[in-house]
Amino acid sequence: MTEPTAASYGVGARVSLYPMCDGFVDVIMGALEDAAPAAASLTTTTSPVSTFAGGGERDLVRWLVALVAAAARRGGDAHLGAHILLSRGCPGEVACALPAGRPWAPGADLRLSATGVVAVADWSLYPLVDADGAMGDHMAPIMAAIARAKESGLFLESDHYVTRLRGDVADVVALVASAWLETGAHVQHVISHLVLSINSPTRQENPA
Amino acid sequence: MTEPTAASYGVGARVSLYPMCDGFVDVIMGALEDAAPAAASLTTTTSPVSTFAGGGERDLVRWLVALVAAAARRGGDAHLGAHILLSRGCPGEVACALPAGRPWAPGADLRLSATGVVAVADWSLYPLVDADGAMGDHMAPIMAAIARAKESGLFLESDHYVTRLRGDVADVVALVASAWLETGAHVQHVISHLVLSINSPTRQENPA
Repeated sequence: MTEPTAASYGVGARVSLYPMCDGFVDVIMGALEDAAPAAASLTTTTSPVSTFAGGGERDLVRWLVALVAAAARRGGDAHLGAHILLSRGCPGEVACALPAGRPWAPGADLRLSATGVVAVADWSLYPLVDADGAMGDHMAPIMAAIARAKESGLFLESDHYVTRLRGDVADVVALVASAWLETGAHVQHVISHLVLSINSPTRQENPA
Repeated sequence: MTEPTAASYGVGARVSLYPMCDGFVDVIMGALEDAAPAAASLTTTTSPVSTFAGGGERDLVRWLVALVAAAARRGGDAHLGAHILLSRGCPGEVACALPAGRPWAPGADLRLSATGVVAVADWSLYPLVDADGAMGDHMAPIMAAIARAKESGLFLESDHYVTRLRGDVADVVALVASAWLETGAHVQHVISHLVLSINSPTRQENPA
């Protein structure tokens, strides 16, 4: 079988930015502009709810980190929320255009330099296993990913339905995308959601 | 087998509100206060990223709708984003404390009165199928849910990884929660994510 491309395999992300300040439009538009060079290799489309980006894993991570860090910088001290969805293995819209049970994941080092922007994030990882897929237990790759998170120093706590991470946006997004990619070597259709909080007025974000 | 309770079966939600205005703290605190009566039957805990609520499906829907509608009203014309995660069938934090492959879903009518608050929303539904689960194809319940969405009049469009809905917040949340509950009759561990946009300055929200 020929290796699929990012587009034919449905590798992509959706992202929403929520600058909690009156000037939110300028923050979002400015962040999109700042991150535009990193978007050059991606296909992007914007909707009223979120922006889609399709492309290779490393390019996606670079753009997502650039975008969120730029929004944090443009917003100054403003509280910033963001939601990221990563998906692979199910191109098209609803129905999957790929035959099931043929996981593919390229080797890629997704680590980037630190941005100086610290986030707390609720992370969830969903390997969608078909009956004819190779994985019998969808929890196994999740547990492996959480073990890696604990080793990384980014693990803050486990909570209902999510693992909470804290660290530089570059490290958090790279960890989550790496787990998504590595799970993708065993399961074809893998989705991950990341809900980010930056500059939260609640004290827990930066415990002493 | 005795019927599980909402708590023993892990029925709950996480929600984040993002009022995009300088007074976001007052909007969020006010909305939590306004929705407090609906939270009486739920167990809630707040973190810097999101608020957890555990309880029965109908109580969860009533509270989520009250909360989002209250934040929209408190914010006036401010753009409001919100993220909701619904989960069932996997109590505890990361590891599931239930034996696999015993789906349970109570019959419940989750429809509520309209709030007057219109949202556009990106919706995704993830039945997490174990090898010993009853469902062979995780796409089947998703396709059934989307067919129901199309009949409901709330379907706006399909997009990469999500189905976009538009309608009163009460109708959108009830539709999504109903699909989550109905899928839960066939698959034990079912998650749904909903990313809401209210009062968006982009025109697409209210096409003429």
